[in-house]
Amino acid sequence: MRSDSWFSIKFHDGRLLFLDQTKLPSSEEYIHTDNPERVAEAIKRLEIRGAPLIGIAAAYALALSVKGGFSEQVFHSAFQLLASTRPTAVNLFNCLQRMKKFCFDLPVQERNFHNLLLEAERIHSEDEMMCEQIANNGLEIFKGRSTVLTHCNTGRLATGGIGTAFGVIQRGFESELIQHVYADETRPLFQGLRLTSYELSKNGIPFSIIPDSAAGVLIRDGKIDLVITGADRIASNGDSANKLGTFTLSVLCKEYKVPFYIAAPSTTIDPVASGFSDIPVEERSPMELVQYLSSGYTSLNFNSFNPSFDITPSENITGIITEKGIFKFPYSFR
Amino acid sequence: MRSDSWFSIKFHDGRLLFLDQTKLPSSEEYIHTDNPERVAEAIKRLEIRGAPLIGIAAAYALALSVKGGFSEQVFHSAFQLLASTRPTAVNLFNCLQRMKKFCFDLPVQERNFHNLLLEAERIHSEDEMMCEQIANNGLEIFKGRSTVLTHCNTGRLATGGIGTAFGVIQRGFESELIQHVYADETRPLFQGLRLTSYELSKNGIPFSIIPDSAAGVLIRDGKIDLVITGADRIASNGDSANKLGTFTLSVLCKEYKVPFYIAAPSTTIDPVASGFSDIPVEERSPMELVQYLSSGYTSLNFNSFNPSFDITPSENITGIITEKGIFKFPYSFR
Repeated sequence: MRSDSWFSIKFHDGRLLFLDQTKLPSSEEYIHTDNPERVAEAIKRLEIRGAPLIGIAAAYALALSVKGGFSEQVFHSAFQLLASTRPTAVNLFNCLQRMKKFCFDLPVQERNFHNLLLEAERIHSEDEMMCEQIANNGLEIFKGRSTVLTHCNTGRLATGGIGTAFGVIQRGFESELIQHVYADETRPLFQGLRLTSYELSKNGIPFSIIPDSAAGVLIRDGKIDLVITGADRIASNGDSANKLGTFTLSVLCKEYKVPFYIAAPSTTIDPVASGFSDIPVEERSPMELVQYLSSGYTSLNFNSFNPSFDITPSENITGIITEKGIFKFPYSFR
Repeated sequence: MRSDSWFSIKFHDGRLLFLDQTKLPSSEEYIHTDNPERVAEAIKRLEIRGAPLIGIAAAYALALSVKGGFSEQVFHSAFQLLASTRPTAVNLFNCLQRMKKFCFDLPVQERNFHNLLLEAERIHSEDEMMCEQIANNGLEIFKGRSTVLTHCNTGRLATGGIGTAFGVIQRGFESELIQHVYADETRPLFQGLRLTSYELSKNGIPFSIIPDSAAGVLIRDGKIDLVITGADRIASNGDSANKLGTFTLSVLCKEYKVPFYIAAPSTTIDPVASGFSDIPVEERSPMELVQYLSSGYTSLNFNSFNPSFDITPSENITGIITEKGIFKFPYSFR
């Protein structure tokens, strides 16, 4: 099946349709709603996740808030509600701000559902286009049919298009440049085990799921031609923050001379962060480590060290693939 | 609390008492039994696990099989039953063979429960002693109060004494040589998250549980003074097989110049295996990766690569601590 035959989010017939990601991969349930509060709830519950996808969903929800007629008060209260759903996603805030500016730049009589929906659709299609450009630029990293390892989830379930690192993998597969994909399960939240497995299977790409610790032997034993991941934030020297586990992959790649790539939109590059030490790392709850165990267990209440991401130094990164092209070490994005 | 105040297995008042490890750490339930079939069941169900501990339990169970009076037929059928519980544990088979030889070397009139129990107790106390010697030899690896990282479970829940790597950590802590322990959760079976956490907490040792992927940043950032793990099999050149994830730790330690130690009884050294390529690696079921997810999920039936252990090359190992002393690279165990 081609990826184009399924979607994680779509605006259709006056309502937002989205795939409930908390049910994946065991069951595919689409939610239909024209209620912005339901969308806010979906973002909070992680039914919709992935920074770009959250931003797109919030933009649609803000348009929906004025479906019954424009009211500044209703618009602002929907804005506040949506902005409060997830504290750390920059895309969410950026998309909401863009919608707000767009709205109030319009003459009063043109502030309506129709026009706001058009802007939300532009946000969505721009993200979709950016994914295609990244994927297209990424094709040149393959030297013949390759076995690729990836980490976390970076596909259609995280973006408005085919994804970042996943988009490169998908278009690579369609161009017969991918033989097999190893997907890290990605502890603690299992984005690889639950979501990347789903996307690979949806696209008919041959794959194996591995415990994160199994990457080491695959890389050492020459089973991996290249590693490709996404990024949450890239400093101006190329140091890149991504899901916990990415840094360790980069060290293994360096030791065993396997190319290590990052794919991300250029909006991920933070000109204010000059390097490593300017990127804050969020630490998460021990509950993420134990939540699937019996409820009794969690009362043990032990300490943990559970950072949500880690930072890969630029010298470990073979190339950073963006919609503008592939950058190489030493990185300069201007 | 001192470790000496709790036990994972004990023979007392004609019965075997053992801690049901499947209930840990949420609940501490001891099973009392004088039925060898119940012990066999416990080994199968992983209520008793850890190669040395399985061997000890099986030896006690074989003694219990003749509690009602010696019968060669009963003895042999208990032997067969116990030998069939776990296919790969070499200790299990070695302990059963030792009990059998001991039994049939006795004059017929002395083949009884009392004498077999004495031999099982010797097996148990020899293992206990070996753990103490390893721990004692291991104390010299600490240069002052140290923060240590470990992987999997190697303590009282895996052996007949204080453990191998865990024994070094425990005696190190009692000698004020340990400040903090980071314990890898150890995917896919969570021996660190479920069992090492329990043992550390029982012994009052300060610790944090981490996702396996978090070890990389801790090692890079100078938060770890040394890493110590156990081993399942050591080749005569020092290449060491241990729980999946150990190899990756050794690469990180090498890159960031952190000492990496293995602690294991000298019986783990396999003189027949000359190196790396002589150690077979068992691959396990994808079910281990997904079993805690909703039952619907498992029907997805995707491929996995899930080796139960990996092999660390001897040049990545700073020292191998045995009951005979600490060996260093290049390894020669004669």
